[in-house]
Amino acid sequence: MAVCDDLFMSVPRHQAMGPGREFDTIRTLLDRWGELAVGIGDDAALLHAPQGRSVVASTDAFVEDTHFRQEWITPFETGVRATAAALSDLAAMGARADALLIAFVVPERWRSKLVDVADGIASVVTDAGARIAGGNISSGGAFSITTTVIGSASRVVPRSGACVGDTLLLTGTLGGPGKALHSWDDGREPSEWARERFARPVARLAAGEAFAEGGAHAMLDISDGLAADARHMAAASRVRLQIVASAVPRGPGVTIPEALTSGEEYELLVAVAPESAGKLMADIAAKYGVRCTRIGEVVATDENDMLAGRSGDVDVFGLTGAHPGVHPAVELVKGHDHFSL
Amino acid sequence: MAVCDDLFMSVPRHQAMGPGREFDTIRTLLDRWGELAVGIGDDAALLHAPQGRSVVASTDAFVEDTHFRQEWITPFETGVRATAAALSDLAAMGARADALLIAFVVPERWRSKLVDVADGIASVVTDAGARIAGGNISSGGAFSITTTVIGSASRVVPRSGACVGDTLLLTGTLGGPGKALHSWDDGREPSEWARERFARPVARLAAGEAFAEGGAHAMLDISDGLAADARHMAAASRVRLQIVASAVPRGPGVTIPEALTSGEEYELLVAVAPESAGKLMADIAAKYGVRCTRIGEVVATDENDMLAGRSGDVDVFGLTGAHPGVHPAVELVKGHDHFSL
Repeated sequence: MAVCDDLFMSVPRHQAMGPGREFDTIRTLLDRWGELAVGIGDDAALLHAPQGRSVVASTDAFVEDTHFRQEWITPFETGVRATAAALSDLAAMGARADALLIAFVVPERWRSKLVDVADGIASVVTDAGARIAGGNISSGGAFSITTTVIGSASRVVPRSGACVGDTLLLTGTLGGPGKALHSWDDGREPSEWARERFARPVARLAAGEAFAEGGAHAMLDISDGLAADARHMAAASRVRLQIVASAVPRGPGVTIPEALTSGEEYELLVAVAPESAGKLMADIAAKYGVRCTRIGEVVATDENDMLAGRSGDVDVFGLTGAHPGVHPAVELVKGHDHFSL
Repeated sequence: MAVCDDLFMSVPRHQAMGPGREFDTIRTLLDRWGELAVGIGDDAALLHAPQGRSVVASTDAFVEDTHFRQEWITPFETGVRATAAALSDLAAMGARADALLIAFVVPERWRSKLVDVADGIASVVTDAGARIAGGNISSGGAFSITTTVIGSASRVVPRSGACVGDTLLLTGTLGGPGKALHSWDDGREPSEWARERFARPVARLAAGEAFAEGGAHAMLDISDGLAADARHMAAASRVRLQIVASAVPRGPGVTIPEALTSGEEYELLVAVAPESAGKLMADIAAKYGVRCTRIGEVVATDENDMLAGRSGDVDVFGLTGAHPGVHPAVELVKGHDHFSL
């Protein structure tokens, strides 16, 4: 049945659909997506389980007036942002992206914009080398895109594998999305750089796969902000993370606390054996143009903390002086309004 | 890594999660779900690709004030309905259910009801023998549940395989959800039977698998109503379906046109070779207690229709006399407000 053997999906032909306005909408989307969408129209998508690879799946919602406002970003960018954010969860597992299922809730006022949204989705799916295998469209009061991503990995990297002594690496430069949200909240236009970082994030799929294949011990994306997600890695791995705040790469005008708390970041935090850090960083920079930075290390958690169920702390150094009054354990963990089960 | 070898998922242990109100909500859900939820907390769910089986996936949204109103059904029932509707798409492929990813959008007024919603989901997932492998929770103005289902089949049944001469079988008894919606629209309480059919549908997973293994040629669920979905099967298979309207099983007080147009039905329409129909019907009734009825047959489409791209017609017989004025091709296709890509 499979025509495209290197793809996750078979049944590349769409099913003929009956008449009706809603099916016209689907036909419009399919016209727009062309060969990017495969086998649409049956009750469920038929996927190809890849030989010898682990299959991973994740779902993520992007909701108008919760995650964004219509005035902030274009319809094209809502498609980019929703898709990139969902794919970032595959990147964080070390997986490549294979298939996407996209569920839209579409208020009447968004109907005419759906083609631009579809274009945004298409641009990200194309870059990821994935395909759209199905979805759902419902009417509703608030526009949302719930994207399910299905991928595969030769080696999966959980968030729970960080070992004492590991080096902590971070992709990219932080603070943009937080800056952008802050500006919009204040009624100001964000800087071009900050706006781009919110509206057109890039899932670190190639870097994530390279980290997985290079033997990384633990990995997650920092969509809830570096400080908050570092705590998740620490808790899951039953270790303590020591992050040198001043080492965290920051964008233009971004303070250290802003960099640590900026959410909607789709960068990867990775724990790797110290002896492999240098080569991995160099390889990923050379092959994929993705900058990685050493930002700290993994240390043992206090035994009393373990007994009290309080493993998972993150120590942030370098916050005194220039940024007094920010308590690493409390004030740095804030500001995200969505989360993953 | 897999502890439960007969399950689709590995990583049965949840990851420890950091502090925060949202994670408390997730912990509440996980407490409620117990062993039904596996490996929650990483960026993506790790699934187990079953040997020698096809993997299928589908996503479906259930949106407040689009698909239901809070006054109509209980929070428990929203969980039941959302999950059963999504699983029905697997049943329609002939697949068993393996893993679910559940994305909630939760307005503040729904927060306290989430435990009951979770219980409704759990009851359906338990009956299906599946597991909850991940999800997402977002705040938002309208409550919605977007359920992604991942399953597997030894033999997948598309909607496009109906052959000339096939017998058309239908599971269950139609008209309940349509009756219920009609009553609520008129400000009346529906009958107990009609209300149950809307609020607590059952996905025909066991029957769907039995049809697949028994060699069914084409299958779909009739969530858009029998008349509308029959057209999809006809269009996809490039045939004409002849349905004897009076043969369609109807619930109490349901007219023939109501039975044909009632949406939100999660019954299966199946095209099977005439010689295998009898045994399949008897087996499925005996093993799973699911009633199947012969409702028509598959005939060749007119060559002129094919040339004009008008294949996929459905002829409905038996509508004269008792139900005059209902034109099979136009008036029977109406009334669904959501649809699947």
